[in-house]
Amino acid sequence: MKAVILVSGGLDSATVCGYVKSLGAEIYVLSFDYGQRHKAELKAAVKVAKMFGAVRHEIIPLSLPASSGNALTDASVAVPMGVSITGIPVTYVPARNTLFLSYALGFAEVVGAKDIYIGASSVDYSGYPDCRPEYFEAFNKMAAIATKVGVEGEPIQIKTPLLYLTKAQTIELGMKHGVDYSITVSCYTADDDGRACGRCDSCQLRKKGFAEAGVADVTQYGH
Amino acid sequence: MKAVILVSGGLDSATVCGYVKSLGAEIYVLSFDYGQRHKAELKAAVKVAKMFGAVRHEIIPLSLPASSGNALTDASVAVPMGVSITGIPVTYVPARNTLFLSYALGFAEVVGAKDIYIGASSVDYSGYPDCRPEYFEAFNKMAAIATKVGVEGEPIQIKTPLLYLTKAQTIELGMKHGVDYSITVSCYTADDDGRACGRCDSCQLRKKGFAEAGVADVTQYGH
Repeated sequence: MKAVILVSGGLDSATVCGYVKSLGAEIYVLSFDYGQRHKAELKAAVKVAKMFGAVRHEIIPLSLPASSGNALTDASVAVPMGVSITGIPVTYVPARNTLFLSYALGFAEVVGAKDIYIGASSVDYSGYPDCRPEYFEAFNKMAAIATKVGVEGEPIQIKTPLLYLTKAQTIELGMKHGVDYSITVSCYTADDDGRACGRCDSCQLRKKGFAEAGVADVTQYGH
Repeated sequence: MKAVILVSGGLDSATVCGYVKSLGAEIYVLSFDYGQRHKAELKAAVKVAKMFGAVRHEIIPLSLPASSGNALTDASVAVPMGVSITGIPVTYVPARNTLFLSYALGFAEVVGAKDIYIGASSVDYSGYPDCRPEYFEAFNKMAAIATKVGVEGEPIQIKTPLLYLTKAQTIELGMKHGVDYSITVSCYTADDDGRACGRCDSCQLRKKGFAEAGVADVTQYGH
């Protein structure tokens, strides 16, 4: 069994790798270099892919349509710092998951994988339209129609094992499957060595997760 | 009204430009440089965008997952020459339209366009899974759920004005809207100056279209 996994280098996608590895799958890792501020993420993705013995890891250069106006790629937009999020966050990037999954769909068809895994959570990221259960359902319906393998009867499916898990539950799942979270990077403003700020929304969510799971926080802080 | 149009530089997308221009839309043209053999297509796309006064034309570098195994990007796979097509053609590229439309979806959201036009035909290209009416319907459903504008009530829609037209009917539509087909390139093996072979499937389909429409074939042949 071959599985494609979208790996950002963060906590969630590393957990997915551990989980999918436990299913006995042959792992194909995809990461995207879309001009994200924090290149430390991609370095972490390389470590994660290695940790789980991926048979292939591709880092795809992909310029996103939104080159400005969102907090993940535009240095002039402030990243959210401990502000409670309502509505759609400023870290929303138009069609990002759709673009990533579309690429993964083609890649899966090329390598002969039937499953594409993404570490999306509708609990922690409920503000993102493209992290909701109904989104993944709609994508799967489209994907079944779009591809040769789908037409021939074996559609490729997007799988979202973390969709209904809190951050704490995700961490528990990862610990069960041997994920070393010290090599993962979640911080929106991580430095080049992957050290986290401890203050941004992403850091706070992660901290809270470790605390709630009762697991020691192995995150490397320090800037 | 703003409209995004996917323009390859071929006959179909040029026709769509003429049609959309006649609706009074402000035109945003997207083309993709995905390592296609025939760069003459992209040169033609530039001419087409200019001909219809596009306010913006972006050529997006996009490495497709299928770097080998299909006739459009892999020089070791023969392009079909006048063979009647049954089933899914060798020119099928996994998830190509899905990837292009996903990019266009994000781009449309960024520039504030509500419509994305693509010159797909289910008549002439019935073998491609991602040229069928049900595919575009499924993509639209997904797109409405995927985006901020969709969630807020104004989904972006993929529009396919050529979907039920034969090549001859497409040419008639284009002639009505002032399309100069001499600048378009359809040939799978066009030379650098855009001159067509006249023998490949794409050339033959185009020739037949001009003949059936009773319109002089202005294609530049010559290699």
